[in-house]
Amino acid sequence: MTDRTQLAINTMRFLAVDAVQKANSGHPGLPMGAAPMAYVLWTRYLRHSPKNPQWPNRDRFVLSGGHGSMLLYALLYLTGYDSVSMADIQNFRQYGSPTPGHPESHLTAGVEATTGPLGQGFGNGVGMAIAERFLAATFNRPGHTIVDHYTYALVSDGDIMEGVSAEAASLAGHLKLGKLIYLYDDNQITLADPAKTTFSEDVTKRFEAYGWHVERVADGNGDLEGIARAIARARAETERPSLIRVQTTIGYGSPNKANTPDAHGSPLGPEEVKLTKQALGWPLEPDFYVPDEALVHFRQAIDRGTAAESAWQAAFAAYAAEYPDLATLWEQFQSGALPDGWDADLPAYKPEDGPVATRKASGAVLNAIAPKVKNLIGGDADLAPSTNTLLKGSDEQQAGTPGGRNLRFGVREHAMGAIVNGIAYHGGLIPYGSTFLVFSDYMRGALRLSALAHLKALWIFTHDSVWVGEDGPTHEPVEHVASLRAMPNMTVIRPADANEVVAAYRVAMQHRGGPVSLILSRQNLPVFDRAQLGPAAGVQKGAYVLYDPAGAPDIILIATGSEVSLAMQAKDRLEAQGVSARVVSMPSWELFDQQPADYCDSVLPPSIKARLAVEAGVSMGWHKYVGDAGRVFSRDDFGASAPYKALMQAFGFTPEHVAEAALEVIAAAKARA
Amino acid sequence: MTDRTQLAINTMRFLAVDAVQKANSGHPGLPMGAAPMAYVLWTRYLRHSPKNPQWPNRDRFVLSGGHGSMLLYALLYLTGYDSVSMADIQNFRQYGSPTPGHPESHLTAGVEATTGPLGQGFGNGVGMAIAERFLAATFNRPGHTIVDHYTYALVSDGDIMEGVSAEAASLAGHLKLGKLIYLYDDNQITLADPAKTTFSEDVTKRFEAYGWHVERVADGNGDLEGIARAIARARAETERPSLIRVQTTIGYGSPNKANTPDAHGSPLGPEEVKLTKQALGWPLEPDFYVPDEALVHFRQAIDRGTAAESAWQAAFAAYAAEYPDLATLWEQFQSGALPDGWDADLPAYKPEDGPVATRKASGAVLNAIAPKVKNLIGGDADLAPSTNTLLKGSDEQQAGTPGGRNLRFGVREHAMGAIVNGIAYHGGLIPYGSTFLVFSDYMRGALRLSALAHLKALWIFTHDSVWVGEDGPTHEPVEHVASLRAMPNMTVIRPADANEVVAAYRVAMQHRGGPVSLILSRQNLPVFDRAQLGPAAGVQKGAYVLYDPAGAPDIILIATGSEVSLAMQAKDRLEAQGVSARVVSMPSWELFDQQPADYCDSVLPPSIKARLAVEAGVSMGWHKYVGDAGRVFSRDDFGASAPYKALMQAFGFTPEHVAEAALEVIAAAKARA
Repeated sequence: MTDRTQLAINTMRFLAVDAVQKANSGHPGLPMGAAPMAYVLWTRYLRHSPKNPQWPNRDRFVLSGGHGSMLLYALLYLTGYDSVSMADIQNFRQYGSPTPGHPESHLTAGVEATTGPLGQGFGNGVGMAIAERFLAATFNRPGHTIVDHYTYALVSDGDIMEGVSAEAASLAGHLKLGKLIYLYDDNQITLADPAKTTFSEDVTKRFEAYGWHVERVADGNGDLEGIARAIARARAETERPSLIRVQTTIGYGSPNKANTPDAHGSPLGPEEVKLTKQALGWPLEPDFYVPDEALVHFRQAIDRGTAAESAWQAAFAAYAAEYPDLATLWEQFQSGALPDGWDADLPAYKPEDGPVATRKASGAVLNAIAPKVKNLIGGDADLAPSTNTLLKGSDEQQAGTPGGRNLRFGVREHAMGAIVNGIAYHGGLIPYGSTFLVFSDYMRGALRLSALAHLKALWIFTHDSVWVGEDGPTHEPVEHVASLRAMPNMTVIRPADANEVVAAYRVAMQHRGGPVSLILSRQNLPVFDRAQLGPAAGVQKGAYVLYDPAGAPDIILIATGSEVSLAMQAKDRLEAQGVSARVVSMPSWELFDQQPADYCDSVLPPSIKARLAVEAGVSMGWHKYVGDAGRVFSRDDFGASAPYKALMQAFGFTPEHVAEAALEVIAAAKARA
Repeated sequence: MTDRTQLAINTMRFLAVDAVQKANSGHPGLPMGAAPMAYVLWTRYLRHSPKNPQWPNRDRFVLSGGHGSMLLYALLYLTGYDSVSMADIQNFRQYGSPTPGHPESHLTAGVEATTGPLGQGFGNGVGMAIAERFLAATFNRPGHTIVDHYTYALVSDGDIMEGVSAEAASLAGHLKLGKLIYLYDDNQITLADPAKTTFSEDVTKRFEAYGWHVERVADGNGDLEGIARAIARARAETERPSLIRVQTTIGYGSPNKANTPDAHGSPLGPEEVKLTKQALGWPLEPDFYVPDEALVHFRQAIDRGTAAESAWQAAFAAYAAEYPDLATLWEQFQSGALPDGWDADLPAYKPEDGPVATRKASGAVLNAIAPKVKNLIGGDADLAPSTNTLLKGSDEQQAGTPGGRNLRFGVREHAMGAIVNGIAYHGGLIPYGSTFLVFSDYMRGALRLSALAHLKALWIFTHDSVWVGEDGPTHEPVEHVASLRAMPNMTVIRPADANEVVAAYRVAMQHRGGPVSLILSRQNLPVFDRAQLGPAAGVQKGAYVLYDPAGAPDIILIATGSEVSLAMQAKDRLEAQGVSARVVSMPSWELFDQQPADYCDSVLPPSIKARLAVEAGVSMGWHKYVGDAGRVFSRDDFGASAPYKALMQAFGFTPEHVAEAALEVIAAAKARA
């Protein structure tokens, strides 16, 4: 290792050490141990353009062990990204800084993925590699290689232990993602313990079993050429993803804490910082010392990146000249905008066509959109025949069909979530994932990050209530709609009929700044007579008056999804008894809460206190809308196994019971008034 | 295969085929393919006592692919369990039957685990094997083997693909659980597709990498001796868990649907049922035909089981004579009751001892209970130094220390959940699992099943709000308390100070019929002066008046956890301005909702409409308690990375802001009145 190389690596290490120490909080150990491999990757291999972090053909680098965030911030600062200044590094983990404890992609340009919860970044990288391969298959032409980048990640012991990464690794091997290269910081220390306390598997053999190419670097602290050779071999391997096990020392250089859990999650402490600087021959002062020689060396990344990007721009210009239509398509993909006429073929449903399960309508809508919106790509966790999410006329995404838009994730919900997120992070594509609503629990870690990272991702959850029926309570979501509504920045839409599905897709496709979850029925639902009741476009406002009686209503029935038609039947029964009810379809709390107060008051007039919410799930949260005088007709316990019509009887979800409850609410509200 | 054997196996197959057909719903394929291996296991190896499904030393059998439930129901009926009659089989998937679509342990004796969501049963079995080994280490003495059983499971392709099983398998290999034997129904078909669509890894190699012993039976349809030999070798292997890959044909016998996804999740249809019966030489009528010869053969299990149990009872009597104290301890373990004096050493905290993080108090309480409650066993997902869940003076549970009560799960939250559930299913032990609250998302599939299956499991979730601070929003739960409250049968308790932690453990330890989640702070919290304010025992009622002013209060401040001390400070500010406030600590909605109305009204008098709930999480659900005139002081967005005191300022969680909000609520309530 040359002196300059050593200097550069130690600069990274001590930026991390000093930042963690100043914040008095953080994880110094990973950056200290992984600095050499990161240095080799970033200075010799990673193709990126610090002055344009959005250059579409850049290599992606994911720090899956997000707790080592200072490693990434140091690299961004040193290689010349405008997003991270020295002041930002000195403000590590402080309010309002772009240098939070774990990297957040929407805050900090150059951060490719929001990481921290372990295993997610591992899955995200698989999604990025799928995106790259799909875009390459879609756009590249002989003599014109527009898309051609690697996806790298730095993964930790914890990443390797998590189930989500196991799922993602198995799928990556199956898909033969040859341009996926993961550096594994094999430091044998987890937060609490030496890894061997809980972890004695043969990682190499496991990844080979998944179909990966595995390299090993015995001295990851010093053998930079070994690291470089391993990366070169990984790049040369085009059929298999690569895992490079780089054996390192966590907290490298710290005389008393290296190779112990003490270096993992806490500052070294002033005395140990001093001893570490002495041990590595680093000046004790100033803190945050960046030698000019190191900075100049790192900052060569700017010119290299600009040159690479310019060459790509020239190549793209030549491509655009020869393939103008493809170039236009490319621009449309990259812009995130929908093409004109994207919604031209959206279906419209009529009552006389008979009842339709909203999952079925969803399949029809997806297939009406997909031919126009060619960057819509997604799939299912082994349930496509049930979730109706296959795009007709599109291939499966497989090793031999990289242009396939139908992603088949297998029985791997959590990896599906992380991979869909990875596709969204990559850019250029609009990804979706689908499974039964009850299994949203399995992928909740990924769902949360899609919301936190403001991703445009579409989650299609079918089989949405106890009306799943015979499969029983293990497969019947009751708390899941509530749980998704509880998640900040997650827009949840539960359409009431096929036309509301169409309207929900209009919202979802145009929504920006966060994910949308569609909640769809297994069972058939009647199609409302829109000629009489008015359009379903009210979905975009979250709630709207579906039916209004002449004169002031005695009660408002508020319902979502399959319970809207039940509310309509109850309304009919009430009318027969001379009681008038407004029926509000409220597919989305989040959209409704964003409307101006006068709209909200027009749908739920404050003067009408008698309100009954009807939803086949837990009541939690509905009191906000029904108020003190109202009531929630809900299912606050698990379901049961039976044909769903039997369950409707057993659980009282019948027009008679709802009408009875409505009469009780009216009486009670009168008594209060 | 003898004729009788063939007859017995086909009896199982056609009970499944007919039941699924009659229900017009279900999964015939797995039972048809897996009947031979299940037959061999249940008739030759499984030690169980159909007339006493609770015999503690029975072998455990988990049907991890719970969709194949008819296989299990057929076995239970045929081997003589009282819990499943022929009428019950004919009522498969009907309301109120003990034969739901997926097996539910709390409904049907002989069902060892509630399965269906894939991978869970795989993890449950690991927990059962840990429980067996721990109990054996605790109770067995030379010449007296009281605990000595195997844990078997039947796992499917989907189970093998799920991340939770990958995590559990890695840990099982690490722990060298030699008495864990899984039969893998290697049928190469998942619900939607041939498995090869998404699944091409080398499963044998992967499991060997985990440290498992892997056997393979090439003809799982016909080679019963091969299956038997593989099970025998697995039983002889004492150092490694065993996976027996039994290659089968899904829907075996069905001329048109065998070996296709069509046999997986739908009835065969009347015509195909007929063709299948013809193909396997089965009488077309009657349906649900059980030949006497087969039934007599299967029912030998009753005598075998009774004899085995009697022998064990005799052995236990001899043991009890020689080790009366251990026998008493055994009975106490099995009873599920807590020993006298279990709470004798519970700590009491005083304000003058200074503030205490509730996670720290939790650690102290656990360690005060553990020496008395010797069947309390549990651990952490690589965060013990932070979750404070290590039992002092107890070993780690490791291959060489099977009596260790400290379970170290590694960075494997979901497997932790499934394994803790497995320990609870096993019986005799009170298990707990712990991690940061934000990572409850990773284990939600298992948490849900703990609630659905009515398990006595304790979930200890620390780092409970945005006050996690520097780690930032990826590590800051905001919606998680709400999400756990949304789950039926999950009791959530968020204590406000160290003494409420003590009270919360009193509830948790004595709670039956479902899990308890404790929600604990990272940061220190003041200890309330109980001499002045009254005892923390109100925790058991879910909410109680912590502070009451003289005369009628102008407002009620309702808070949980760390926000209770904030509410107390706000109350002081209000009092200084001549405004009187009651402060209600409300650690548990679920417990409060179970109280009689007069108690609830005494805590939250209906006449006092000015109410302010204060909680550093999403507001969802609080409107039920604050009412139309009230308000929720909440955090309805993700957090941020900063020292937590800076976040409190930034997010407005200060006594001044809360007091201001209270004044606004009082004014608005007056205006409404």
